[in-house]
Formats: sequence, C-alpha cells, structure tokens
Amino acid sequence: MKLSNLIGDRFRETPSDCVVESHALMLRGGYMKYVANGIYSSLPPLKRITKKIEEIIREEMDALDGQEVSFPVALPASLWEESGRYASVGSELLRFTDRNGAKMVLGMTHEEAAVQLVREYASTYSRYPFMIYQIQTKFRDEARPRAGLIRVREFTMKDAYSFHTSQEDLESYYARCLRAYQRIFARAGIPEVVCVASDSGMMGGSLSHEFMLLTAAGEDSIVLCPDCGYSANMEAAECIYHTEGTESAPSVEGTPLLPVETPGVHTIEELADFLHIAPSSTCKAVVYQKNKDDSYVVLFLRGDLEVNEAKLTSYLGEDIHPAIITEESGLQAGFIGPVSLQAPEGTVVLFDRSLEGLSGLACGANREGWHQTGLDLKRDCPDAEYRDFAKAFAGGICPVCGKRSLTVSRGIEVGNIFQLGDKYTRSMHMQYVDEKGKSHTPIMGCYGIGVGRLAASVCEAKHDEYGPVWPISIAPWQVHLCCMRGDNAEVRAQADRLYEALQRAGVEVLYDDRNVSAGVMFSDADLLGVPVRLVASPRNLKEGCVELSLRGDRASAVKIPEDAAVDGVLSRIRELTEALEKNVPERI
Amino acid sequence: MKLSNLIGDRFRETPSDCVVESHALMLRGGYMKYVANGIYSSLPPLKRITKKIEEIIREEMDALDGQEVSFPVALPASLWEESGRYASVGSELLRFTDRNGAKMVLGMTHEEAAVQLVREYASTYSRYPFMIYQIQTKFRDEARPRAGLIRVREFTMKDAYSFHTSQEDLESYYARCLRAYQRIFARAGIPEVVCVASDSGMMGGSLSHEFMLLTAAGEDSIVLCPDCGYSANMEAAECIYHTEGTESAPSVEGTPLLPVETPGVHTIEELADFLHIAPSSTCKAVVYQKNKDDSYVVLFLRGDLEVNEAKLTSYLGEDIHPAIITEESGLQAGFIGPVSLQAPEGTVVLFDRSLEGLSGLACGANREGWHQTGLDLKRDCPDAEYRDFAKAFAGGICPVCGKRSLTVSRGIEVGNIFQLGDKYTRSMHMQYVDEKGKSHTPIMGCYGIGVGRLAASVCEAKHDEYGPVWPISIAPWQVHLCCMRGDNAEVRAQADRLYEALQRAGVEVLYDDRNVSAGVMFSDADLLGVPVRLVASPRNLKEGCVELSLRGDRASAVKIPEDAAVDGVLSRIRELTEALEKNVPERI
Repeated sequence: MKLSNLIGDRFRETPSDCVVESHALMLRGGYMKYVANGIYSSLPPLKRITKKIEEIIREEMDALDGQEVSFPVALPASLWEESGRYASVGSELLRFTDRNGAKMVLGMTHEEAAVQLVREYASTYSRYPFMIYQIQTKFRDEARPRAGLIRVREFTMKDAYSFHTSQEDLESYYARCLRAYQRIFARAGIPEVVCVASDSGMMGGSLSHEFMLLTAAGEDSIVLCPDCGYSANMEAAECIYHTEGTESAPSVEGTPLLPVETPGVHTIEELADFLHIAPSSTCKAVVYQKNKDDSYVVLFLRGDLEVNEAKLTSYLGEDIHPAIITEESGLQAGFIGPVSLQAPEGTVVLFDRSLEGLSGLACGANREGWHQTGLDLKRDCPDAEYRDFAKAFAGGICPVCGKRSLTVSRGIEVGNIFQLGDKYTRSMHMQYVDEKGKSHTPIMGCYGIGVGRLAASVCEAKHDEYGPVWPISIAPWQVHLCCMRGDNAEVRAQADRLYEALQRAGVEVLYDDRNVSAGVMFSDADLLGVPVRLVASPRNLKEGCVELSLRGDRASAVKIPEDAAVDGVLSRIRELTEALEKNVPERI
Repeated sequence: MKLSNLIGDRFRETPSDCVVESHALMLRGGYMKYVANGIYSSLPPLKRITKKIEEIIREEMDALDGQEVSFPVALPASLWEESGRYASVGSELLRFTDRNGAKMVLGMTHEEAAVQLVREYASTYSRYPFMIYQIQTKFRDEARPRAGLIRVREFTMKDAYSFHTSQEDLESYYARCLRAYQRIFARAGIPEVVCVASDSGMMGGSLSHEFMLLTAAGEDSIVLCPDCGYSANMEAAECIYHTEGTESAPSVEGTPLLPVETPGVHTIEELADFLHIAPSSTCKAVVYQKNKDDSYVVLFLRGDLEVNEAKLTSYLGEDIHPAIITEESGLQAGFIGPVSLQAPEGTVVLFDRSLEGLSGLACGANREGWHQTGLDLKRDCPDAEYRDFAKAFAGGICPVCGKRSLTVSRGIEVGNIFQLGDKYTRSMHMQYVDEKGKSHTPIMGCYGIGVGRLAASVCEAKHDEYGPVWPISIAPWQVHLCCMRGDNAEVRAQADRLYEALQRAGVEVLYDDRNVSAGVMFSDADLLGVPVRLVASPRNLKEGCVELSLRGDRASAVKIPEDAAVDGVLSRIRELTEALEKNVPERI
C-alpha cells in the first residue's frame, strides 16, 4: 500500500472532546471517523487491525471446538420476551417496530438467538457439549458513549455460547475458555490483562470473570490484593471490616441515645466536624427508590464507607435510582437514622455489615435539625440483619488473605466470561433427553470480546507521546518504508526497489512515497504505529545503506546495506513475533 | 470437522412455505434457520460458504485498488436528510429514534456514509480516483420477504464506492469493476450470470447494470435478444413497435368517432370480445395516483401492452400507486378514453409511443356503459406527446438489432453497479480543488453484491433433486469422508486414518463418523453438497480400497487403494478448481 493512496487524514491537534489517549490517537492517525454519538466509521488502518484481531479470536475459538455461525442484528422482540429480558433490560436495549408494526430489538448480546438456533438440534444428550460463536455488529444504546472506541453504541463483538449437560462440564470448558482469553490478549500484545471476578449483572448466572487492562483511562474500578493475587471488579468485591479494634470508633457500650440539636448539619462530613468525631463513628443513611414503583430503600452503613450499588441491586433483584425524598414521605432528608424511622409503607430498610455490633455512633434523629449520639446497634436495632452492601476501598482488608492490603485501580474491560446456568435455557424451554429418556434443562456459558475496544485498549497500553506502537501481531502493516526526498530520482528508485522486494517476500508494507518533509513523514509514521521502519534517504544512499529501526525504540536504529534490507526486516518481524509469543500461555 | 459434532439438523421434507429450491435445500441441509420474517441465522455450513465468497470478493476488490473500511449499521437520519433520501425512500428504509429521541436509520446502502467518510480527505484533485468498500450487515424492511436468502430483510452485502474527477475516469473504472464482477461470479461457480442494462431506481445516476442469474426462481424479468446479445432488465428495456404494418390494427383513416353502447364491458379483453377486434386495436387507459398528493396520472397505451411502472415513475420523478377512482373524480372507471376526458385539475395525462399515428381504435367514451370506435390519434388527440411507457414483451422487437427476436426470462439479481454521477456529492456538498485552484463536485460509482443471495443463487443454479452441488471454490468443505458401518472397528480405523491424513495434507474434510444407515449418511452428504466424496466401507476395505467420487456425478466413482486416497482427493480438487478457473475472464 502506498501512503499517497491511503484514504484518511492525519493531524497534530488533539480533538477537544478526547478524554483518553487511544481516542485522540485513533482520530489523529486516520483510523476512524465520527458519524454520530458513539458511532464511528473505520478507515483502512483500523479495519486491518480489527481483521487481524478477529483472526486471532477465530483461531482460539476454533481451537476450543467452537463453530462459527451468525445471528441477526435485528431480532424479533418475541425472543427477548421469552427470556424476560425485553421487560427487564433498560433503554440501552434499542427497541423499534418494523413497517408491519412488529416489535423488534437491535441485538446487544445473543443468548436468546443462540438458544433459538440450537433448541431443536440439541434435544438429546449425545449432542453435548458444543460451542457456537459469531463475530458481528452489536448495538447498545448507551446513555453516555465516551472515550472513542472504549464505550460506543455500535461495535463489533465476538460472542460465544457453550451448552452443557452438567456443571462439571461447564466448569471445565469455562476454564479452557478463560485460558483461550488469556491467549487472545497475549497474542494481541497485552498479556498484562488481569482476570477478575465480577458481578453478572443483567446477564444472570452465578460465576463470571472480566478481563481488565489496568489503565487510568478505564471506566471500571478493580480491587486487587498485591499480596495474594486476589482481584475483583469493584461491583463484585467483598468488603471486609474489623468490627473490633481501632479502625472503627471505639465501642462505647452503655452510652444512652441522646438527641443533639444540629442546625444546618446535613452530611456525614458536617456531622463529624460538628461533633468532633471521625466519620467512621457515625451511621449514615443512603436512600434509593425502586425503578418499578418508586418505593424507598433506606440503607444504613458506617459513615466512612460508600454504597456498592451493584450489590444492592443484586440483593433486591431489581433496578434502583438515588431517591428524590418528598415531604409527604415522612423521611427527613439529612437527618435519617435507624431509631424511630418513619418511612412510607413498603420501604425496605437494610443494614450494611460494617455496622454490625457497633455502639457509640452518631446518627440522624428523624427530625429536622436533630441528630442523636450513643447509637448501640445491638440495643437500639435488635432486629437488624446485616449484609455486605459497601464498596471495598484502598487500604481495606483482602477477603482472601485477610491482610490490609487492597489497592483499587482503574481498568478497561476487554472481555468477559459467564457461567449462565439455566437462566436462558429454562425460560426459553430448551430441553434434552438423557440416556434414560429423562428430560433436563441444559446449562450455558457465554464469552464476549469487543473487537474495537480491544484495538483501542492495545493502543491505550502501547503508545508513546507520538502515536501508537502496534504489536506486530495486529499492526496494520508490518513495515513502514519511508522514502525521504522522493524528488531525488535515485532515492526514489531505491525505495521503489525495496517496496517491490518486500512485497515479493510476503511482507505487509506501507510505503510512504509522498514528496513531503521529514517532519510530516515521521510524524505520520509515528501515528500509524507500524512496528518496523525502513528509511531510504539521500544520506543513507550515499553510504549504500538504508536505516532499519523499531517504532518507539530509537536506539534500535541500524544502517544496513540495501541488499540486506529484506532479510533485516524479516528478522525484526520474527524477533517481535517471538517476543510476543513468549507471553502466550499454553492451551488447556 | 466431524459430522457428529456439526450443529444443525438435516431433514427430508420440504417446508411448506418454500417456493424456491435453494430456500428448501438450505433449510433442509442445516444451512440456516428462520428467526423472523426475512431474517435468518446462519449455521456453520452456510457461514463457511459465505466466508469463502467474501474472500473472493475481497480479492477482486483489492485488485481494483479498493480499500476496505466499515460504515455503521445504525446511521443518523441527518446524513440521509443531507442527500434527500430520508424523505424520498419509502418504508423499506427502517427509521427509528434512539433513547435520546435522535432520528436514526438502519443502513440499507451507504452512499451517504461513504461521502461523509471521505468528504474532507478528498478535497484536492491529487487524491482521486479511489475506491472504498465494506462487507457488512444491511437492513431493508421489505414488504414481502420471500424465497429464503433471495429476498431477505437483513443481509450481508459488499458495497463499494468509487470517486472520480471526470466521467471518462469513472467509465474506465466502471468497466474494470464490471469485469471484476464477472470474475467474482465465475470464481463462485456461476459464470453464466449475464450483465444487463438496468433502471437506476432510488440510487439515482445515469448508467447502471445488473448481474442476473437466469432461473425460473428469479423475481426479475430480463429482456434478451439471442440474435445480437442485447439484454436489459424489464424495468429498463425499451419497447419498440412497428406503427405501420400488421402487428397493430390496420389504419383506417377517415373513419369517424362513433359512440357504441357497451353495457357491462369494463376491461380491454371484454371490449375486444364485444367488438370482435384484437386487443391491439384498442386504446387502453391505466390510472395511477401520485403517492405524495393522490393526484391522478392517466396513461393511454395500446390495448395489448402492459405499463412499465419503472419508466413511468422515472419520467414523473415521483412514486405512484394504482389508483382508487372515486365518483367525485369524474373519471369513469372502465370507460376512460382520450377524447373529452373529464379529470380533476392536476391530473397528468400521458400517451405511450405505441399509440403514435394509430387510427381506427376502440376506446372508452368517458361515459358509464359507453365506448367509441374510430379513434384517430392524430386527428382526435392533436396535442398528445408520445413517450416510452410500455413493457417490452417476448416476440417483440429488439431495440438494438431491430429483429422481432426478444425473449423474456426470469432472473435473480446477484449484483449491480451504478454510475451515480454527482447525485450524492452535490447534495452533500463534497468538493475538490483542481490544479488551478478551482472547485468542482466529484462523481461517484457504486457497486453492490449480496453475499447470502449469491450463495443462494449458486445453490439455485447448482443442485440436483438431492441437494446442492457446491462449486469447489465456495464449498463448505472440500471433501466429505463417509465411514460406512462405523461399528466395524477396522473400517473405523481406516476412516480415522484417512481423516488424519487429509487434514495433514491441508484438505478441508467433513468426516461423517456417525453410526447411521447408508441411506441417512448419503442423503446427508447430498444435502451438504461437498464436491468430493470419499467412502470407507467393509466391502471397500476387503478390496483394500476406498471409493472416490464427485457429488452429483455417480459415473465419476472409482475405487482406489487407501494409500492413494489423499493424492486422489487432491487431484480431484485440483481438477475442479482448474475447470472453474477456465471460465474466469482476465482482469482489465
């Protein structure tokens, strides 16, 4: 490919709406173009990258005995009604009606379509286990698309669905799939991706893992224990407290509950200031409303902690939103406490485990302008049940090794795998007959990777201030050939010879044959991020040489004779490939 | 791949809703599954076929210097408003609103997206010509999906867009693209596809061609002249008449216009019967209404001819539908004639060329129960202008060689190419600056192939009563290995050895390792249509042999020693490939 023909513009200025590097670099490098909010067209460099990523994914799925199929993008609503998700999934599911008034959706995931495809086929035990997958366009009507390809509305995804007759079989397949995912990320150049336990969210099912690239640009919070290796998405991370000892307020049993006038004190920070105590010596109320009927959910937790809404949603089994507290409700916003709480009928009152056994706390008095001190949970709230609703925090206690070692990092979710159990097969009445003629419901796993997000994540992990440094396995081209001073006929002839020779050797070459300045040529090359670079120039030509280097590694530059150039390029490609493969774990 | 693991069921009965063979065979063979009206999932055999077709298309597009990109499936309506198609295209364009109320469409073609992608890039002459293409999901909300993959609502399409600075450049590129299309169809195994001139329809532009597979299962009518090779889609075919001579009624000049009472006579057939004349001696009225305002369009043509609605729509520049004639309109349905016609204001009255210079015709008298005879167009309709609005017909006159040689065939449109001119670039304000700094509007070509429809068309052209006979280039596998009597350990061992050896030789093998009857095994093999077949059986084993044959050619069966089997398969594949390649025209 000659760069003079490559469609797309490259430019220096970072667009003002870019909050992450990959977004800026992929716009600046002519990889993609904005079409609508969260919707992009791909230009040739990105298309070449994603095709290579798709091929890596395909090889790993095929090695897991996956069978490639394709499901429709536009699905009848009836399928989603069968599973119950037509009602339960929010407005990120794009619903529409066709010309005949039939209700349809744009597929954001394809569990229902997978069950529909194999429901009749897999009606006998002998056809299990099996896995089907597709690589295809999906649409998710995100409220806030952001960060370029990291969170879009339309995207290409590999989604795979496995079907099993036993939990053991699912688990052993799940383990193979987890390894395949580690291989995919390592082959794509980011072996540092970590696998963390996660919350299953709207997918349902029991066990699930996310694959996270740790980077400040990520939107997820991941809780890690550097000591024992524990890792979990914040949504799924257990929050552990010493309920004895110094980290909470000293228990002061026997202190009576006393009202304190606290005019203008509404927040925990204000209350702690006012009373000269630590926030951890307070009992905080956080109020939500259920989406379905706006009834209230009042959660009490220790004042220094945050609510983990994923855990709360999961416990309630329904979606919630922060409450708008009305006067009629009887709730005294800013002054809510667990003793003598006056709340409308139907209000759910919950206690976080952080409060269990505590005493001597300050809390709201359920009366405008008043708090109380001396709260003793055991004495004052004898019926409270305690559950884990709080967010883990940096410096907190690892639920596995028990050390106060937790760290919290930002990450991009580049893949996820789920043990779905029978959520879809049961609701959609999929059954198989066993060897004895008895009917059972099969169980499923599902396994997703967003192709564009993976490309952007690699860019996020592998770039310098000038542009991406693409791993050789997914680079849009393998070698970038620069012809400096293309108006010099001899240099041009040398570069043309090298272009031909490299193509004959089967190398993917991008040839910058333009008559532009060295500055433009090198900044474009940096933006295109091709890992091996070969430069023909008048000075090199005088020495009978060309310059060979690696992108992002100026120290790697060497001058080699023209007739050694193709071999030099081939061995650089080989070395880069071998270095990458060293990090790829074996299949299991 | 072992057939025992291949997902999908095969069955004998033709589903009742199948009107074409490819639809029935692709359901019966486990190639696809119905999801919703005009929407299917693809099972592995079809996915393998379409991937091979896509790769052929990609190679031919790359050879035309095409650059692969991808456009969104979900597009903002604003893009289609820029080109004017948001208003002009009917309800086959699926319109919806996203969660924020923004108007969007599902892409059915991507001219607007293509212009949007390159509008800034291609702002100077030196960047022309270029071509971009994608292979991607499209949605067209067809009123009447039918015939399996022939007319669906969701489909995968290769769509390409070329940009040029002169008509000459477009034409020379168009010719190369036309040849590339002929190569694609020949490589996919249907070199018999014919290229016909067509009507540009909603795409706009001047010249266009369709690629038609002639088959009774097709939905299009194609007019062909076997004498000179003229071919055109019925919609675009010119209709030529001798206005002197015997094919119309003898001209009877000087006959006066006479009213005739014709009670209960409404149709041309009834009128011709009643008057004992040929339908060609009558003047027929066909009435339409404009979609936009329901105003009437009255078209007069010779009684034996049919209206070509595509020509009429194209002349009017707007969409029409058959009229519902109200009493208030003053039109006398069944008795409409060109003399003293009483029609509402705004009615368009048109005359087909077939009437030009005729006399002595019978026609409606614009009075309930009455016709008139002796119509002389020259005398009675002196202001009529004549244009070509009639359908060409079998036995009609070829507009190129002038012989009465036309035939009409049914065909499936497997591809189309258009010279779009500046329809999109002008409306979307795409401009480039020439060498002298002057601004111009570039012109475009566009080039489409439906991947699934091509697969179905090949099936339509290449099948027998038992199933498809896939061309080697797109067959889901190259060889189908049958192990007859898999319960015989020696036969099983032989078949296993062959499976291993074929895979080692790089052959794509489908291995039927199931313990099923010969009848099931062979009928499944026929439905899967793999071109080369290898059979291991107890009888063959006794002779130290396996049986090698070609699908659909029982006479080709030979017995060969086991150790010659791999070579035998490889040479059959080579022969089939060479036979196919003989029909592929050179690139230009």
